Amino acid sequence: MKFIVDKIKLQEAISNTQKAITGKSAMPVLQGICITATKSEITLVGSDLDLTIEARISADIFEEGRIVIDARLFGEIIKKMPNASIEIETIDDKSIYIKCLKSTATLVYMDPENYPSIPHINEDVVLTVQQDIIKHMIRGTIFAAAQDETRPILTGILFEVEEGKLNLVALDGYRVAIRRQLIDCNHNISAVIPSKTLSEVSKILEDSDKAVNITFTDNHILFNLGNTKVISRLLEGEFMKYSSIIPSEYNLKVIANRSDVLNAVERASLMGKEGNTNLIKLDIADDNLIISSNSQLGKAREEVSIILQGESLKIAFNAKYLIDIFKIIEAEEVVMEFNSSISPCVVKNKEDENECTYLLLPVRLVQN
Amino acid sequence: MKFIVDKIKLQEAISNTQKAITGKSAMPVLQGICITATKSEITLVGSDLDLTIEARISADIFEEGRIVIDARLFGEIIKKMPNASIEIETIDDKSIYIKCLKSTATLVYMDPENYPSIPHINEDVVLTVQQDIIKHMIRGTIFAAAQDETRPILTGILFEVEEGKLNLVALDGYRVAIRRQLIDCNHNISAVIPSKTLSEVSKILEDSDKAVNITFTDNHILFNLGNTKVISRLLEGEFMKYSSIIPSEYNLKVIANRSDVLNAVERASLMGKEGNTNLIKLDIADDNLIISSNSQLGKAREEVSIILQGESLKIAFNAKYLIDIFKIIEAEEVVMEFNSSISPCVVKNKEDENECTYLLLPVRLVQN
Repeated sequence: MKFIVDKIKLQEAISNTQKAITGKSAMPVLQGICITATKSEITLVGSDLDLTIEARISADIFEEGRIVIDARLFGEIIKKMPNASIEIETIDDKSIYIKCLKSTATLVYMDPENYPSIPHINEDVVLTVQQDIIKHMIRGTIFAAAQDETRPILTGILFEVEEGKLNLVALDGYRVAIRRQLIDCNHNISAVIPSKTLSEVSKILEDSDKAVNITFTDNHILFNLGNTKVISRLLEGEFMKYSSIIPSEYNLKVIANRSDVLNAVERASLMGKEGNTNLIKLDIADDNLIISSNSQLGKAREEVSIILQGESLKIAFNAKYLIDIFKIIEAEEVVMEFNSSISPCVVKNKEDENECTYLLLPVRLVQN
Repeated sequence: MKFIVDKIKLQEAISNTQKAITGKSAMPVLQGICITATKSEITLVGSDLDLTIEARISADIFEEGRIVIDARLFGEIIKKMPNASIEIETIDDKSIYIKCLKSTATLVYMDPENYPSIPHINEDVVLTVQQDIIKHMIRGTIFAAAQDETRPILTGILFEVEEGKLNLVALDGYRVAIRRQLIDCNHNISAVIPSKTLSEVSKILEDSDKAVNITFTDNHILFNLGNTKVISRLLEGEFMKYSSIIPSEYNLKVIANRSDVLNAVERASLMGKEGNTNLIKLDIADDNLIISSNSQLGKAREEVSIILQGESLKIAFNAKYLIDIFKIIEAEEVVMEFNSSISPCVVKNKEDENECTYLLLPVRLVQN
């Protein structure tokens, strides 16, 4: 194998494929990047079997071939090379020789025969979405996915296509996060993707309107970004019927400035944090939201002006969960809907109530 | 106690005094900031007994008084308050009441009677230096101070005033770092300051030409920055006679571009790091510096163009130590002076050979 490639392009491709290399596998070969040189391009693959990332870059190929090279060391060496063309060549059947201007290095490589084959997927593209949109949808739901493995399916995010709408849904038993986007698609799809792999996918997606093509198979999802492909295994099992959890009616509706509420809750929660509880109380009455908390260290009281439609209400929440939601909504004003102090609260973007729905269960207070 | 103070000023004063609060003391009161309201200003003090930081800010005082308040919680609450005037008042003999616009909090305070008295220092100023200069001098030496406590005096930095020059010196048995600055001072001084406290001092010093007044006593050094005073305990004992270690002659002199050498050493060191050794070899001959390293994972070879005066030489170093030195020198070109493969190497700024001197012991190679 012998090729010459641009340093910046190679560094970017390594950085992308490294995101799939978790270093947790018992197979040493999965610590490596598999590099294949064919015709006029090289392909880099990183994988932990759950997640596989493939990056293609153009190169001058003098001899085709395939090797697996330690991802971390190779990545560090390329990163520190001068910004120029890099020549890479296999020598003596077990090493590669790397040359860039006056810098040279030889590195032992691993046998590519041991590298697992990557899942073959027929790319009959189902969805095309802007990269920044899908990136925001992932970011807007991933925090609500379950952390513990009691119900493995809830550690994933549901990708649901229904009636020309893409819905991303995450829930963990305390809260539900839903983001919606109109798309051009006639299929109905329901697939659950591990949030761990989606977190890496969202790092590769750009904050731009470039397209990403998405393909689903029975076991995998493929994101095709052009020169980079990301393949994730799906989670098996049935996702919770989330739509039945969202209350369709409410007794009480609050319209508030998002950052005013966020700042007030953050301040009030400082007391709770110290006292090992994370409880904050909301007292909603007369166009006024009073947020309070207390612990053995002291107490806090915050007032926020709101627009109130309906009866007054006292309700309590885990401050961290409320902060998560108010941080992730990209809106100046939000709508909060309540039914009672023991029913979930629904939070939406006031400008576009269909863009997202967040639901949070209250903490039931012991009566005095 | 009751006062009204500007939020930004208070936040900055808390942030500065917090740098002395390490949280490692057995005295709970040292987790706190001691706040004293007198006449037209409040004074905040943080201390871990080794290091004491005092910040003064103007305030509207309605009632004088003194309290000690948990530094972390108080700091977080003030930081999250809106950007406006903050009213602070003691209530019910054990709490303070904090009010800022529509935000309020009450916080339990600690008894100021238990707070240790801060060292009294007669400020007969000895030195006046620009803040950015002393900050750079600390930064340029602190990395070479000893980390282990085998010889406690070497964990400090020597502040030496001699013949109108301020020298800062740190050494750990493998390397010596010296920075020099001409100053207007007729005294001769020699004091060793713990590098741990100097690290905090350098965070408070600004990157500006504002003055800092420095006073020495038998046991303490005081940095007076105007509204902020920093007092550090000195280390007891005799510092090593460093000047006798620096060779005054050399057989071989190399002039090189600093960043060329730094980048080459950093690349070559990647191999060494992986193999658990950090050794790099320098082969100096014919206006060429060849840097190489190898481990079981591979090998690297780097070439850097230099100007050589004297004989050729092969010598080896711990790559990390060489990188430390080449990173910290603020010069385009450096001078390296050698005597033999088993004598120390001296590195200087080529533009100003008196500004700094770095010395590094080589690693003795086993002969083949």
